[in-house]
Amino acid sequence: MFKLNFKNSLSSSFNSIPFQSTNNFLTRKLTTIFKEEKKENFEIGRFNHIAIAVPDLKKAGEMYKNTFGAEISEIMHLPEHGVSTIFVKLANTKIELLHPLGEKSPIKGFLEKNPMGGIHHMCLEVENIQKAIKQMEKSNIKTIGKEPKIGAHNKPVIFLHPKSVGGVLIELEQNSN
Amino acid sequence: MFKLNFKNSLSSSFNSIPFQSTNNFLTRKLTTIFKEEKKENFEIGRFNHIAIAVPDLKKAGEMYKNTFGAEISEIMHLPEHGVSTIFVKLANTKIELLHPLGEKSPIKGFLEKNPMGGIHHMCLEVENIQKAIKQMEKSNIKTIGKEPKIGAHNKPVIFLHPKSVGGVLIELEQNSN
Repeated sequence: MFKLNFKNSLSSSFNSIPFQSTNNFLTRKLTTIFKEEKKENFEIGRFNHIAIAVPDLKKAGEMYKNTFGAEISEIMHLPEHGVSTIFVKLANTKIELLHPLGEKSPIKGFLEKNPMGGIHHMCLEVENIQKAIKQMEKSNIKTIGKEPKIGAHNKPVIFLHPKSVGGVLIELEQNSN
Repeated sequence: MFKLNFKNSLSSSFNSIPFQSTNNFLTRKLTTIFKEEKKENFEIGRFNHIAIAVPDLKKAGEMYKNTFGAEISEIMHLPEHGVSTIFVKLANTKIELLHPLGEKSPIKGFLEKNPMGGIHHMCLEVENIQKAIKQMEKSNIKTIGKEPKIGAHNKPVIFLHPKSVGGVLIELEQNSN
């Protein structure tokens, strides 16, 4: 009610002066500025997945399927990423169970240190990976490598160094849906 | 194409016999059985949050806000849970930044072992915490304590022992929305 009265009194005050065109111009100008600012501002997206390294992929998958009643994928082998994986579908995100594949697997060392398994990383989505990299540079957050790579979901990804982000390995994945 | 043909041949074979009523009865009966089975079957719910222990709560919150552009809560002190926390809102779930509060804090030891910080646990929702506990017992998964406690969100929670679930500390939270 207050808003309505305020609006009414505004329009009646300015009815007699040629303000309308200036006002429209200002509105357009401000809209443009806000849009640009929004575009400039980096904003993290969805929680894409949590990755858990496991010593026995089949057994871990069965636990999530049989005990937790979750839907799981078949085992997928991704030799170019050095892992075999099972996706566990949850209502709002997914768990990725990872097991080393090949001698150069990036999770081999982690499992040697954590033989029972454990949470390896979390993956957050970004709209534009290049903008994300620039944003991290601006904030002195180190990335692992300078350029994005094509990740396990065939999308550009980059990892942030745990030392820069509170001990957590964070994967950023471009997911411009 | 094959499915379509199969369906067509079935319906033409049964068109001449009074099968429809029996068929309806069977369908109802099976639907009931499946519904009951679904009710009995334990099913894990949403990914409620990932909890990250941090050595400096304010600094960590600022990173998620300023660098990642995420919406964050004020610092909340939960002396009954031995933590101070900041919630980081993501589109589909949340991150909880945790810092020890008091001498008996459950994350004090974790931060001593991981001074940079790190992922402490993940929290999955369940519809009924008592059913969840029974399901874990049935699958020989150890819980920390026998009975649920009231968690930081004022809902019943129980933790699963990392030794039983692949090295990951998993919190189950009753969230019967």
